[in-house]
Amino acid sequence: MSVIGSVERGSDEKGDTSAIARRYRRVRDHSEQICAPLSPEDCVIQSMPDVSPMRWHLAHTTWFFETFILKQQDNYRPACEAFEYLFNSYYNTVGQQYPRERRGLLSRPSLEEIYEYRRSVDQQMRELLNRPECMTDELANVIEVGLQHEQQHQELMLTDIKHVLSCNPLMPFYQEAQLDSASPPPQDWIAFDDGVVEIGHPGNAFSFDNELPRHRVFLEPYEISTRLVTNDDFLQFIQAGGYQGPEHWLSMGWQAVTQHGWTSPMHWSFRDGEWSEFTLAGSVPLQLDLPVTHVSYFEADAYARWATARLPTEAEWEHAIAGEENVVQGAENLFRDGRAVHPAHETGSSRFSSAFGSAWQWTSSSYAPYPGYQPLPGALGEYNGKFMCNQYVLRGSSCATSANHQRVTYRNFFPPAARWQFTGIRLARSIA
Amino acid sequence: MSVIGSVERGSDEKGDTSAIARRYRRVRDHSEQICAPLSPEDCVIQSMPDVSPMRWHLAHTTWFFETFILKQQDNYRPACEAFEYLFNSYYNTVGQQYPRERRGLLSRPSLEEIYEYRRSVDQQMRELLNRPECMTDELANVIEVGLQHEQQHQELMLTDIKHVLSCNPLMPFYQEAQLDSASPPPQDWIAFDDGVVEIGHPGNAFSFDNELPRHRVFLEPYEISTRLVTNDDFLQFIQAGGYQGPEHWLSMGWQAVTQHGWTSPMHWSFRDGEWSEFTLAGSVPLQLDLPVTHVSYFEADAYARWATARLPTEAEWEHAIAGEENVVQGAENLFRDGRAVHPAHETGSSRFSSAFGSAWQWTSSSYAPYPGYQPLPGALGEYNGKFMCNQYVLRGSSCATSANHQRVTYRNFFPPAARWQFTGIRLARSIA
Amino acid sequence: MSVIGSVERGSDEKGDTSAIARRYRRVRDHSEQICAPLSPEDCVIQSMPDVSPMRWHLAHTTWFFETFILKQQDNYRPACEAFEYLFNSYYNTVGQQYPRERRGLLSRPSLEEIYEYRRSVDQQMRELLNRPECMTDELANVIEVGLQHEQQHQELMLTDIKHVLSCNPLMPFYQEAQLDSASPPPQDWIAFDDGVVEIGHPGNAFSFDNELPRHRVFLEPYEISTRLVTNDDFLQFIQAGGYQGPEHWLSMGWQAVTQHGWTSPMHWSFRDGEWSEFTLAGSVPLQLDLPVTHVSYFEADAYARWATARLPTEAEWEHAIAGEENVVQGAENLFRDGRAVHPAHETGSSRFSSAFGSAWQWTSSSYAPYPGYQPLPGALGEYNGKFMCNQYVLRGSSCATSANHQRVTYRNFFPPAARWQFTGIRLARSIA
Amino acid sequence: MSVIGSVERGSDEKGDTSAIARRYRRVRDHSEQICAPLSPEDCVIQSMPDVSPMRWHLAHTTWFFETFILKQQDNYRPACEAFEYLFNSYYNTVGQQYPRERRGLLSRPSLEEIYEYRRSVDQQMRELLNRPECMTDELANVIEVGLQHEQQHQELMLTDIKHVLSCNPLMPFYQEAQLDSASPPPQDWIAFDDGVVEIGHPGNAFSFDNELPRHRVFLEPYEISTRLVTNDDFLQFIQAGGYQGPEHWLSMGWQAVTQHGWTSPMHWSFRDGEWSEFTLAGSVPLQLDLPVTHVSYFEADAYARWATARLPTEAEWEHAIAGEENVVQGAENLFRDGRAVHPAHETGSSRFSSAFGSAWQWTSSSYAPYPGYQPLPGALGEYNGKFMCNQYVLRGSSCATSANHQRVTYRNFFPPAARWQFTGIRLARSIA
Repeated sequence: MSVIGSVERGSDEKGDTSAIARRYRRVRDHSEQICAPLSPEDCVIQSMPDVSPMRWHLAHTTWFFETFILKQQDNYRPACEAFEYLFNSYYNTVGQQYPRERRGLLSRPSLEEIYEYRRSVDQQMRELLNRPECMTDELANVIEVGLQHEQQHQELMLTDIKHVLSCNPLMPFYQEAQLDSASPPPQDWIAFDDGVVEIGHPGNAFSFDNELPRHRVFLEPYEISTRLVTNDDFLQFIQAGGYQGPEHWLSMGWQAVTQHGWTSPMHWSFRDGEWSEFTLAGSVPLQLDLPVTHVSYFEADAYARWATARLPTEAEWEHAIAGEENVVQGAENLFRDGRAVHPAHETGSSRFSSAFGSAWQWTSSSYAPYPGYQPLPGALGEYNGKFMCNQYVLRGSSCATSANHQRVTYRNFFPPAARWQFTGIRLARSIA
Repeated sequence: MSVIGSVERGSDEKGDTSAIARRYRRVRDHSEQICAPLSPEDCVIQSMPDVSPMRWHLAHTTWFFETFILKQQDNYRPACEAFEYLFNSYYNTVGQQYPRERRGLLSRPSLEEIYEYRRSVDQQMRELLNRPECMTDELANVIEVGLQHEQQHQELMLTDIKHVLSCNPLMPFYQEAQLDSASPPPQDWIAFDDGVVEIGHPGNAFSFDNELPRHRVFLEPYEISTRLVTNDDFLQFIQAGGYQGPEHWLSMGWQAVTQHGWTSPMHWSFRDGEWSEFTLAGSVPLQLDLPVTHVSYFEADAYARWATARLPTEAEWEHAIAGEENVVQGAENLFRDGRAVHPAHETGSSRFSSAFGSAWQWTSSSYAPYPGYQPLPGALGEYNGKFMCNQYVLRGSSCATSANHQRVTYRNFFPPAARWQFTGIRLARSIA
Repeated sequence: MSVIGSVERGSDEKGDTSAIARRYRRVRDHSEQICAPLSPEDCVIQSMPDVSPMRWHLAHTTWFFETFILKQQDNYRPACEAFEYLFNSYYNTVGQQYPRERRGLLSRPSLEEIYEYRRSVDQQMRELLNRPECMTDELANVIEVGLQHEQQHQELMLTDIKHVLSCNPLMPFYQEAQLDSASPPPQDWIAFDDGVVEIGHPGNAFSFDNELPRHRVFLEPYEISTRLVTNDDFLQFIQAGGYQGPEHWLSMGWQAVTQHGWTSPMHWSFRDGEWSEFTLAGSVPLQLDLPVTHVSYFEADAYARWATARLPTEAEWEHAIAGEENVVQGAENLFRDGRAVHPAHETGSSRFSSAFGSAWQWTSSSYAPYPGYQPLPGALGEYNGKFMCNQYVLRGSSCATSANHQRVTYRNFFPPAARWQFTGIRLARSIA
Repeated sequence: MSVIGSVERGSDEKGDTSAIARRYRRVRDHSEQICAPLSPEDCVIQSMPDVSPMRWHLAHTTWFFETFILKQQDNYRPACEAFEYLFNSYYNTVGQQYPRERRGLLSRPSLEEIYEYRRSVDQQMRELLNRPECMTDELANVIEVGLQHEQQHQELMLTDIKHVLSCNPLMPFYQEAQLDSASPPPQDWIAFDDGVVEIGHPGNAFSFDNELPRHRVFLEPYEISTRLVTNDDFLQFIQAGGYQGPEHWLSMGWQAVTQHGWTSPMHWSFRDGEWSEFTLAGSVPLQLDLPVTHVSYFEADAYARWATARLPTEAEWEHAIAGEENVVQGAENLFRDGRAVHPAHETGSSRFSSAFGSAWQWTSSSYAPYPGYQPLPGALGEYNGKFMCNQYVLRGSSCATSANHQRVTYRNFFPPAARWQFTGIRLARSIA
């Protein structure tokens, strides 16, 4: 089955809607856990057009279940007619949308009313999940899409609130927590021969439509780094004048540097001879050993060129990582052990550190449909395909990605100037 | 004395700091009363660059007392060093300012912390006012400036929150209240001969520096309307195609019409054949009898030209109104008797209705210094003078102006495209 | 007669259309003389929206005669229908206009075809002027308006081509000529008492409608400088840090400084420790003795404040200058004796140097209608009135103004940030 | 050799510099032939930032030979030092550049002086080519790059002047010529099996660096249309509401439609119920049979989706076309037989019509480096690589491409909103 949300459920889940219900509850709770440290004031602000207010995330993810599941049931009465308009993100098939760049102009419904909206929808979802006789494959599918969708927003919530707080000269912190202080693993390269390989999701469990269909690509010989580029590495690029002239940059990249006045990754600042970095745990001295993050595609690409390497293609990345065992690891919960939500070197049984759970890795691949790609019919078909232009694919996952929202075939994507996500750099090289 | 805040205090106030203290308390309380119906979320939003968030108004007016009074005392320890930067509006002499257009990006200090900041400053102001021995004329002067300044912000708070709420498709109301429904007084004209007249503040009580010095001007014969233009009047202009072609408009005015797509005053909307108006009491059917409001200088000027009249100069306005008895009237409190804060026809013993307390009246006078104008030395000298360019003077006061913040010599000013204030139209005509 | 173009012709001109014809020819020739040193390429360029290409000036001034005179005659066949649209500047009454900011996108009709258009219209104008029986007062009036209009464009042609050439790093010069090298006259002040004075055109000869009607104003005592501010004076302002902080500037002025990066008047440059100035005669070392020019209203105002003076109002200026004898002087032809078209100190029998013929003098007066102002009916009514907003009045005339296009009542006007005209500074002061 | 300009010259050219000299002369003459119908005025205008003035093209292509060849010779004295700055396009290694968007502000050097500059450089190039002993492989290489570079500009000259003339309401034509009137060939599809294929230039003759190295890619089964989409086809898309709603568009594409108000391909207009098209031969009724042109990537992509097809990848295109015999055809000279420079259906022995010589064909491939891509060292390394971001590859060639500037491996590229080139649509489909 090559559609979004195709879930090949295990025997323990067949007809077992209680497993779905448990998962529904855990995912929904996590969104509210993310907002727990925040005040109502924090949840209103849209600090740039790319950012959405926390209150909008809480409402929109709820709107998704209301629109695509509850409204499809008989006799459903919507909580508030206006929400269909207010909290629709970009589904033209569903209707008009309140303009994205104006999301920060709304103070009503209040945060408390949005929580009530969540409780109301959750209650009705629970009732639905209590009726196993209603649970078709298609319905289970759409619920899973809704949960994966909410997990995507959870990552955005963390990076959005980080951006919001960073605009405040008071440098408020989101969490009291510690950055990791482990030394980075040694830098090494692992080589791969040329040949036809398969990439893309096999279709035997949930995936988004953009990961399908599994298909063949030819790879020329290449090697790929075992670890992420560190702050120390990147600082050498800065100190070598990396931001001071156009020579390492794409033409559009250099335009971005001069237009925005970039002199370092986002959230770095230099004062009195010292670099510091704004994190979700507040402003801290720059930790040289940690992976560099909050770099745009342009910065990743320029760094790679300066380092006489390049970014991997997404096929190279997937082929390399998919060969490892137990490759997708990560915490069940992003808030663990007093650790800050911030990229660290995640090591395990894999030869590659930090493939997942640290920082998304820019690839040189423009976001495009796989051969034979078919968007879903209906509104959910707007999920991915219409964004396949002028964006670049990122692979892996980040410290802000839920552990059960990670796949070796997962395709994240952002425009090349985006920096507010937890984005990092893994280098590759062609072998002559 | 031709300075800001020159207060010629009566004998009952000489040395009587308790009168000042009472007035201080009333004014300060009123700001919090204005915010009482609002949620913390409401108080964060800056819906356009001209608008400031409620929380910013509450903090900035407090900053004013802290900066210009408390910090001048010995041993004062500021509440928070960063507030000097965060809540400075435009006083370069005091220091750098957090950029105006980014005021909506701040969620911290929280609204509750801002109220604490107010309480802390108020407590110290009270202590100061309890020591009559410290009360110099100059200090009393600056306190009065601070109170007048806060009253100006109270008016802005009402128009700013109106704009914020108007951006929300849910059309939330600020107050449960009724619009006035009285019939408009008859339209009449009162004529004045030519001659040299005096305008400007005599300097015997508080005034802003821009009202000084009193000086002579020559007026050619003119007549001026006894009442404000009504919604009904203005609707005829619309229905006559007023917004559909350039013939009645200043060149820059027509540019504004086409650029912003104006088809009516701000806050009007037309749906299913009916006009309605968004007010602080919510959206209501357009009340034809009420004074038109939320018009720009451009619209006021175009309407006047269409009506074969013109706007008065500020000298004409002041000369006409100053001749009346008991001209400045108005409520002690803006929130009275369940009446909405919205322009109505304010009548009294004067031959002119609504000179005060209804809608500010655009004049044709560009905002400029009076002959011999001297700004205050020091930071307070930045209060008025530096804005004397490309703005037009409005006279009178509005429904959102405190009763004891009204003077026949008062000069309000806004750029010609501004519409979010309670602005209205009083016509004048030259007499050949 | 208080209308545009009211010409009280002397007896030598009554019925004497040959005088008009001679004047017509001289004015029309002068436009072509201005373009004589230019290549067809030079005449295409619009270097900013305020600038018009030379070819457009040549055509538009011709269009004016065609539209307002020839087309009113019986049986007139227009040269080309499209010209009505292409060469209309802003007369909505006449019809739609080709967008102003796109004037530099036209290469056709060619420069040669535009000269043919001029010859064709001139030929028909000559025929009309050869028929004294057709010459009504009204027609003579409109012809005079057309000639005055063309003289206005002649000044723009010189400042526009100066701007065009200044964009070229090759620094090409427009004319081979010398700057004046005379020493400046001594700086002095002439004082005036308070009282009611009359300003505005008496209506006994040609004037534009904005100079009418003559009316009374009251002036407080003031004094006004006998000469213009020099480059040397202005350099001291620069060296005292005038452009480095907001203290002397209007708020909008400081915005302009920071937004445009102004560090000196337009056309100045600083390289290797030396100031130079781009002139119509090429780039030359800055001549300290000459009047400063190419300053905005903002710069004039900031300089005046720094110099503890102010700009005069237009009434002060007119009253002071009108009291002099033979006040309006100047060359019949702008190109005389190998002198560059550039401000110098123009002295004569007047106590004030450079009232005319050097640099326009910014006043503090916003451009507004005089009491009783009546725009002309019809299309010519769009000439002045609709621009009376957010512009400041300049008085006198400049080195680029034709000698017979100067009047003590003349009101020139530009937005406060405009710098590409020959604008200068004459100081005034209030007398306490 | 995998570098730009690697020329594996045949025996007839080894050491035979006269063949190079002849080719040099033909290419250089052709640029001047393109400008022959134009006036000096036509050659100044830059009608949008993407467009360069004709005079700039003439000078820049000359600068290329001067900079990369003549300046490398001993004792070369440049024509004018300023030209290095004025006519450098984007070579940072060579030095600073006059800003691209200001190219239309230059009237000097005059067109005649630019022709002199061309003659001077050509003379010195001739002298160099007369000394076979100087002709190294590397030098021959760079000369060929310069000639290919000039041919690229020749195509831009034609599309740029078309855009310039289209801004003129007079609708001037560039050439007196006829559009083709032949019927379109029948629409058919040719299918290809899956498998590993080779694409990219084999390196045995001249190519740009972006065509290298030849490498393997895996293709899934697909089929590709034998002819281009016609105006008739595209009109059906318009009439089916293609531009009226977002459903067929990429998200960014729909943004472009609404932002620019697109309702048809560029240069089309609809008046009085009839479509017409502006061509280099003037405005003509829309020819339904001809290939559609002046469409953006967005329009090509939306059309394809509406037609239940898609755009080919560049590998699919190259594999399909490279299998044909004599695939690259075309006229030696673009101006032949009175035919307008405008897309027609070019047929020949190939099964695919119009692969070359009609309209560039958008592919779905983002412009990216081939595996193992190496930019040239030095300034010429800036030729291609730095533009590999947010652009899409076009294949084939157009009616404005010189016949000897066509290769099956040629990679043209433009941003997805670009419409002013001769761009068209060839459809493809995946085979399940």
